[in-house]
Amino acid sequence: MKKIQTPRGTRDFLPEEMIKREFVINKIKQVFEKYGFDPLQTPAFESWSLLSAKQGGGEEIKEDIYYFKDKAGRELGLRFDLTVPLARVIANNPQLTKPFRRYAIGRVWRYDRPQKGRYREFWQADVDSVGSKEMISDAEFIAIDVDVFRSLGFKNFVVRINNRKVIEGLLEICNIDKNKYDIFRILDKLEKIGLEEVKKELNKLGVDSKKIIDFISIRGKPDKTIEKAKKILKDSKIGTEGLNELEEVIKYCKMYDIIDYVEIDFSIARGLNYYTGIVYETTIKGFEGIGSVCSGGRYDKLVEIAGGERIPGVGLSFGIERIVDIMKEKNIFDSIKTKTKVFIVSVNNSVRKDCIKLAQELRKNGINAQIDIMGRNIRKQLEYVDSLGIPYAIIVGPEEVKKNKYKLKDMKKGTEQELSQQNILNKLK
Amino acid sequence: MKKIQTPRGTRDFLPEEMIKREFVINKIKQVFEKYGFDPLQTPAFESWSLLSAKQGGGEEIKEDIYYFKDKAGRELGLRFDLTVPLARVIANNPQLTKPFRRYAIGRVWRYDRPQKGRYREFWQADVDSVGSKEMISDAEFIAIDVDVFRSLGFKNFVVRINNRKVIEGLLEICNIDKNKYDIFRILDKLEKIGLEEVKKELNKLGVDSKKIIDFISIRGKPDKTIEKAKKILKDSKIGTEGLNELEEVIKYCKMYDIIDYVEIDFSIARGLNYYTGIVYETTIKGFEGIGSVCSGGRYDKLVEIAGGERIPGVGLSFGIERIVDIMKEKNIFDSIKTKTKVFIVSVNNSVRKDCIKLAQELRKNGINAQIDIMGRNIRKQLEYVDSLGIPYAIIVGPEEVKKNKYKLKDMKKGTEQELSQQNILNKLK
Repeated sequence: MKKIQTPRGTRDFLPEEMIKREFVINKIKQVFEKYGFDPLQTPAFESWSLLSAKQGGGEEIKEDIYYFKDKAGRELGLRFDLTVPLARVIANNPQLTKPFRRYAIGRVWRYDRPQKGRYREFWQADVDSVGSKEMISDAEFIAIDVDVFRSLGFKNFVVRINNRKVIEGLLEICNIDKNKYDIFRILDKLEKIGLEEVKKELNKLGVDSKKIIDFISIRGKPDKTIEKAKKILKDSKIGTEGLNELEEVIKYCKMYDIIDYVEIDFSIARGLNYYTGIVYETTIKGFEGIGSVCSGGRYDKLVEIAGGERIPGVGLSFGIERIVDIMKEKNIFDSIKTKTKVFIVSVNNSVRKDCIKLAQELRKNGINAQIDIMGRNIRKQLEYVDSLGIPYAIIVGPEEVKKNKYKLKDMKKGTEQELSQQNILNKLK
Repeated sequence: MKKIQTPRGTRDFLPEEMIKREFVINKIKQVFEKYGFDPLQTPAFESWSLLSAKQGGGEEIKEDIYYFKDKAGRELGLRFDLTVPLARVIANNPQLTKPFRRYAIGRVWRYDRPQKGRYREFWQADVDSVGSKEMISDAEFIAIDVDVFRSLGFKNFVVRINNRKVIEGLLEICNIDKNKYDIFRILDKLEKIGLEEVKKELNKLGVDSKKIIDFISIRGKPDKTIEKAKKILKDSKIGTEGLNELEEVIKYCKMYDIIDYVEIDFSIARGLNYYTGIVYETTIKGFEGIGSVCSGGRYDKLVEIAGGERIPGVGLSFGIERIVDIMKEKNIFDSIKTKTKVFIVSVNNSVRKDCIKLAQELRKNGINAQIDIMGRNIRKQLEYVDSLGIPYAIIVGPEEVKKNKYKLKDMKKGTEQELSQQNILNKLK
């Protein structure tokens, strides 16, 4: 019979890989909780009407949604992000205390062309705060962003910030109708296609590409860049408002003592339609090619698409795949293949009961332990221990049981010690 | 605009609910790891050819699979359990060391009629060991089963065991062709439809229902029930083999010191097609109506359906929804609405920087802390703390900053203490 593979663009995560992924996810979760966010889970699929709403992901994302009908003919789709479902939760639960601070870590699906770092099923770790229009809320997410990467062991990374209002201001002074041309979508492709291609696409629309290109090329430390932009956008109300907001966010970043990680980059646009204010993307130095490892921003109208009232929100999304890939390349992970700490080798079947008892004692003390369930000889059992990389083995035979002393083998060092059960427990705990 | 709801049969889990679910899932995960199992994750959807295989779930399940095509026309379906995907992983990765011991906790989907305790999207926590044909492997899962429920705080529950081979033996002595009639499926409905209905269905097939009903009514403590069954099935080779296996499993259950939780119940059949040997179901006393909270068994041919070699496997599946529901009814959970430990109340905007600094200090010490991001007055901030059930509040004003002493409010007791930052850290840690 032919072997059946995983569907295209999806993957299995074997234990060795899962242990790495869990390390990353747990660190992120810890930071989210430290900042006072609580877990929320929503279904894997949602109504098509929610997912396909114009103010949600937008046309490009819509093309990528896995669409299906249930047996009653309801139109559904697999969620493409964790923010649109959050908007529905807020709309459906007006009783929720504001600010509503939640995180969600889970799978999302996009029918994208599979390539390095891009999958059709991937994991996002999202954190959002709904209810505050204050810039201190935006800054809090930049602090979370920085905290996550520091706690994962990164030192050289940069959070690049912009404000959609600034780009709106730019369009205003260029006399470009923002509803007519989707300039945001073109700008968002900058990292992917490069400045020259963006220029070409803008020229195709017949707009003043030079002015735009010059402006979005402004990047660097906040104070000077904002000052420069203020002069250019001085005649745009929305643009000036956007720059003032940026200034305020920067002020809070200084209070959070994270300003060294922050840069202004007026080319940041974010592909998803729902952003309305401050937006940010994070890249790891030396891994800019992989793209943003964490991005987000402010969306002040998102809840409306699910039938709720207008309510401001801010959030961040971490890309688990990209972070894991970079950490692998940087060799940050310990190479661990199993969470089992010790394997109990039974010399023969007469001591099975003793092995079980010892294993249960280890487990009661929180030590992850395995016994032989294959009826294998000692050599084969030790080969298994080696193959899995279990750090310790305990040898149990009739002699050992009589003496109540067991050989504890350190598999890495190759050393052996004869110890009482209590001493083994103490050593392994 | 009309509010968009969750798709029928699916639910959101708000933080208060999620905290309960995570408590249960973490306990289960801990037990799995203590027994030396490692995490594995597979895609949410699989090829239709895998999911619909006859030796997999079987006809009844097939009807309940969410089916869809991707944009290239590939036939896919949302997974209905975590065992069939495991079979595919084993088939695709012959290099994996055996026994391959993995756990998987995640969503599965079945287009079932939604009712109390039954959803279209639900969570399973599965643990499986692939590669051993020994009964010590079957017994290990019963030990895990017992360990999970004890660690969740349950005392009165029973693991009811049977062996599919015993039922095959019964069919043999009743001269019923097991390939002609799906007797397993009828027996599996016993809890749902009752003995009388099962009898009717059997009579419809024209088989000797009395002999079957008498036999499957045998239940109770292992020794006597097995002895009784041995006499009835003495002329069936497969039936006797099944009873001998049961005896061996019971022997190991005694070694594991869990025999008090174990009963024989010859009516247990399990609905899924893939089981071939020992099967078990667990019910909580007083909650038998909810059905099995954990079930599983041995499947010796499952890997074949994914194109792999025949390889024996055993596994268990915990139903998260049912366990959570029962624990709620039994009032086992603490009523916690948030993981935030402390909220920093700012007396006015002049101390925002000090609040941020204090919050960062708390977070550095592993204490989950929130600050005001709404620009609210003191009263409103304290209302928020109350509404979320955050256990502590720290009051920070210009006076407090000057003295470097802050009021720590215990929200439950209503008491206040003036403490230095260091003393607050020590107290909350």
